[in-house]
Amino acid sequence: MVLIGAGLIGTSIGQALTAAGVQVEVRDANPSHARVAVGRGAGTQTPVDPAEVALVVVAVPPRAIAAVVDEALDVYRNAVVTDVGSVKEPQLRELIDHRSLSRYVGSHPMAGSHLAGPLAASADLFSERTWVITPHEDSAPEAIATVEALARLCDARLITMAPADHDRAVGRVSHLPHLVSVLMAGQLAQMSPDDLALAGQGVRDVTRIAGGDPGLWEQIVSANARVLVPELQALADRLSELTQRLERTEPDVRPLLAQANAGVRKLPGKHGASAVDYASIVIEIPDAPGSLARLFGDVDAAGVNVEDVAIEHDPMRLVGHLRIYVHPDREQALTRAMTDAGWRVSTAAPPL
Amino acid sequence: MVLIGAGLIGTSIGQALTAAGVQVEVRDANPSHARVAVGRGAGTQTPVDPAEVALVVVAVPPRAIAAVVDEALDVYRNAVVTDVGSVKEPQLRELIDHRSLSRYVGSHPMAGSHLAGPLAASADLFSERTWVITPHEDSAPEAIATVEALARLCDARLITMAPADHDRAVGRVSHLPHLVSVLMAGQLAQMSPDDLALAGQGVRDVTRIAGGDPGLWEQIVSANARVLVPELQALADRLSELTQRLERTEPDVRPLLAQANAGVRKLPGKHGASAVDYASIVIEIPDAPGSLARLFGDVDAAGVNVEDVAIEHDPMRLVGHLRIYVHPDREQALTRAMTDAGWRVSTAAPPL
Repeated sequence: MVLIGAGLIGTSIGQALTAAGVQVEVRDANPSHARVAVGRGAGTQTPVDPAEVALVVVAVPPRAIAAVVDEALDVYRNAVVTDVGSVKEPQLRELIDHRSLSRYVGSHPMAGSHLAGPLAASADLFSERTWVITPHEDSAPEAIATVEALARLCDARLITMAPADHDRAVGRVSHLPHLVSVLMAGQLAQMSPDDLALAGQGVRDVTRIAGGDPGLWEQIVSANARVLVPELQALADRLSELTQRLERTEPDVRPLLAQANAGVRKLPGKHGASAVDYASIVIEIPDAPGSLARLFGDVDAAGVNVEDVAIEHDPMRLVGHLRIYVHPDREQALTRAMTDAGWRVSTAAPPL
Repeated sequence: MVLIGAGLIGTSIGQALTAAGVQVEVRDANPSHARVAVGRGAGTQTPVDPAEVALVVVAVPPRAIAAVVDEALDVYRNAVVTDVGSVKEPQLRELIDHRSLSRYVGSHPMAGSHLAGPLAASADLFSERTWVITPHEDSAPEAIATVEALARLCDARLITMAPADHDRAVGRVSHLPHLVSVLMAGQLAQMSPDDLALAGQGVRDVTRIAGGDPGLWEQIVSANARVLVPELQALADRLSELTQRLERTEPDVRPLLAQANAGVRKLPGKHGASAVDYASIVIEIPDAPGSLARLFGDVDAAGVNVEDVAIEHDPMRLVGHLRIYVHPDREQALTRAMTDAGWRVSTAAPPL
């Protein structure tokens, strides 16, 4: 196969396929990226006969995808061509106007990193992650099967969706939350250090993803503008209702807070099961090597299964708190065991 | 001292003061709450002579604070009275119109829990947490000193702010992010299971705090409406600008994304220092007792200090990934050591 684009995603695909015994030719407009990818086991730079290529994976930045797919369909006349972009419908419409697309099937491996480039790549980046395949009406069944085989070789979990359905879903549950986080973080940029000194865990959680790469996100949200604009308009209506309710002499925001509770509960829980209300205990951990190992050793000795864990840092103090989530019926046993083992156990939570 | 209101905050204060040798009378409109608080070491229900009381702490729900403070100033004629509400200015204005307030000093211990009530209380709930003292112009210096002593007995870190400055700061960095999270979670409530199946870590982070108690948050944001309404209007302007930029034939959202990056960087980092860009590695953990203890034992053996840690669950797979943050110059050593110890180490991140 031929890999065009040796960034994080492309190099990781090259590594996974090479590990699976597939011959991979690595191409990148940036020769040093291609060399690094080859050095990290993503394939070779030896050109293959274009007529012999069965699969081309286009892993270039979102804005370049349509043109590169178009060219690849011309150059590799017998190959199935796929891409790995986060938005599928616009590039499809761009292409389908002027050519047959039976050999093209879009796909979207839902994995990534806050790091970019071939150095951050890993053959198991997609392992058991969701990989959405987005066939269109003209996709040949053999072409779809080829892209499915690609995702399986990368050890991913397949979901098949129409391109427009995919774009609507990721627009709503990924791109829209990103923009909401961006709006809040933009307000932070205007605030004084005195205001920011009272920041707790809540605002950190809400704005974490707004720290993502502006260059990449600009391309993603621009490509999915058709889905995002109506979602943002619905958000503006909701914001307007909230503001009006808060402006009343007797504010009445309860319905919106209750609806938000319902929305949080609708998110699929851990491992795809419905959400479980875990109990949690909070343990103070000294900021020193070995504390976490000792702590989890004592948790293990208590025979309690840890469902989730989070370190809560307080910007005002020199220790962290580790919150350990367990099934509610194990909370008391764990609290007792950890207290007996000498840990400071509390119900302290991040500031409201 | 007299404690009025035996919920999570009040009972925790009673426990901390009782542990410090202070005699505490616990009062609550709900007799079973008072009994539970006393049973958990928050003080006694034995009435003391009101004229002898030096300090009254009002720890009732936000909506009831002003009336209870007012009554306490009448009943306990020689006592300093404080409260623990999240919003300070409105109740002060309500009181200052019709009485002398030299014996009243507002305060806001910034600690809490997703649990409520005396059963969730803990004597160390405030330990090294921020406790904002909000004296007003008429507060007597001795009254301020008494409330400062209260916060110190609870092992909290004091910050002194004017009531209006406090309300503006928590409005911006705590209440506003809460409402932003509520707006996003409200949109989730409208989405189909097919859309929600593609939800990753990002939307979970953005909407986590929207799962908070609607009854409590309604009172908090209503009390701080004066601060929040202009902040929400600024957010609406920002949202409108974002939508307009996204509607253009050539969308141009880069400036807003870059400003959001700057906002995230302005948040004080771990332990109040400026934020450090930690490196992180991701390790696959089997969902079984003992995995975390073994894992941190191996991290410890590598001699690398863990700066932060987060478990990333993928709803589609049966394992979790632990992301370990370390200083950038220790990343390679830890990756090598953990790989050698047999762990699956990758650069995998949550879906974009």
